[in-house]
Amino acid sequence: MSILVVGSVAFDTLKTAYGEREKILGGSATYFSLAASYFTKVRVVAVVGEDFTGEHEEVMKARGIDTTGIERAKGKTFHWGGEYGDNLNEAKTNFTDLNVFQNFKPRIPKQYTDTSFLFLANIDPALQLEVRRQMPDVKLVGGDTMNLWINISREQLTGTLKEVDILLINDGEAKLLAGDSSLPRAARKVLQMGPRALVIKHGEYGATIFFRDGMHPFRAPALPIDEVQDPTGAGDSFAGGFMGYIASQGTLDRSVLTKAMFYGGVMGSFAVERFGTERLQKLTTEEIENRFEMFRSLTHLE
Amino acid sequence: MSILVVGSVAFDTLKTAYGEREKILGGSATYFSLAASYFTKVRVVAVVGEDFTGEHEEVMKARGIDTTGIERAKGKTFHWGGEYGDNLNEAKTNFTDLNVFQNFKPRIPKQYTDTSFLFLANIDPALQLEVRRQMPDVKLVGGDTMNLWINISREQLTGTLKEVDILLINDGEAKLLAGDSSLPRAARKVLQMGPRALVIKHGEYGATIFFRDGMHPFRAPALPIDEVQDPTGAGDSFAGGFMGYIASQGTLDRSVLTKAMFYGGVMGSFAVERFGTERLQKLTTEEIENRFEMFRSLTHLE
Repeated sequence: MSILVVGSVAFDTLKTAYGEREKILGGSATYFSLAASYFTKVRVVAVVGEDFTGEHEEVMKARGIDTTGIERAKGKTFHWGGEYGDNLNEAKTNFTDLNVFQNFKPRIPKQYTDTSFLFLANIDPALQLEVRRQMPDVKLVGGDTMNLWINISREQLTGTLKEVDILLINDGEAKLLAGDSSLPRAARKVLQMGPRALVIKHGEYGATIFFRDGMHPFRAPALPIDEVQDPTGAGDSFAGGFMGYIASQGTLDRSVLTKAMFYGGVMGSFAVERFGTERLQKLTTEEIENRFEMFRSLTHLE
Repeated sequence: MSILVVGSVAFDTLKTAYGEREKILGGSATYFSLAASYFTKVRVVAVVGEDFTGEHEEVMKARGIDTTGIERAKGKTFHWGGEYGDNLNEAKTNFTDLNVFQNFKPRIPKQYTDTSFLFLANIDPALQLEVRRQMPDVKLVGGDTMNLWINISREQLTGTLKEVDILLINDGEAKLLAGDSSLPRAARKVLQMGPRALVIKHGEYGATIFFRDGMHPFRAPALPIDEVQDPTGAGDSFAGGFMGYIASQGTLDRSVLTKAMFYGGVMGSFAVERFGTERLQKLTTEEIENRFEMFRSLTHLE
């Protein structure tokens, strides 16, 4: 079944130990939709400016992604500049030019309203809730957020979380949201805020999914990768693999969820091997399945 | 088969978010031997002072640990004082009174020389090498080290590493030893220094074993534990479970090594649930097996 993602389509200017890139295609919805496109039909709602060309759009279209929902606005596309030092889990932001993103009012095209799965990428929780309300019939809603919203829009975020089935955040965000330095306790507190499941991403150590109903948590590894050229988009690609795989399956049992965690890790691990979305643009099913097997052998107890 | 551990038997004065304890039993050899005692016969070589009582020794004897090799010296026992803040992976040292440990010259009792497995806990790499040379017939040598020795005795340590089969260190130590901020690359560099296998401990995220011969790495989880009362000894308890399980098995194939990684995580997870060695003193086989199953369900892909 198809999945709709609402988030940012943007440009990134990046510097890592492996080099620099100027104004390359990025954004949470871009990474998410490319990663998810290997599993299911993907639709995107975002806003871009006049500097977003047909060539940029073609990156998504070539993967069969429906870009009807990408609105063209007057002005420039959201542009983020950042760099990474030795700690690849932490980016130093050089600039954040919101540009057309500043006035983003997500509009869901009519032909999108029958989408079964929805992913609310990291945008203002007020907008996330608006989108959620425009899609009353979705089967499952995934969501992301960040420290900024936890700090400045906690109340709004708490309202949005009641409408999210699976929240995907990282360790620091979970601890900040719960106000608790113990990760499992923080997980329990976040689950009491609404989501039925919580995926906490641990960067190079993988990710753990916790469940509100008391089902055993499950941890998927991240592959020990020699050369992380550019960590940008790892979390969004994880979400794309995770939600994309779920959307591709008919049911939502433990077997599907645990495999989805693995596919999330797989897509995140591909994303960081090259700058930007380069690696996610041209993967083969064989590459994905081979990496899945590597992940399995990394954790499989004989 | 039996295992010999050479390391510290000490007192710890600790402060964590859960309380304080003064001069409780600790030390790398103590945690290691208690954890290993659930799997195999354990022998200890260490030095203690006059303040080490029969009651302290009884903690080990009650677990069937052979304490013949614990030397009594004039003076006080090694005493460490430290505390933990929110980051449980990092202790703040308040004092380190080496006392009798300062002049520790490990002497292997004659009746110990037939021991098949040897673990060189975190002591001066020069002493580790001396011990290793006194045990030429061991089947397998495990070892630990720390930032201090990497910084002040790198050359000596490099010599010792050539005589160690399996090195167990944490992320920071591996990166420092290799001079490389990428963990998998650091692992490869450390393996080129001598050990056939390298276990890198990731604290609450588990541990990964890397092999020199190119066999797939394997990652075991750490359990998400709500209440880490005292992280002291987690790494030594991991080593005790890991090496103890290996010593208890006849062979050393991937199946044994992967289970050993799990048992390492299991024993580490018990250690941190209470202050000091309290939890490791009275475990049941059932508790250990139940936790092993919890770890398995945490990572088992259906």
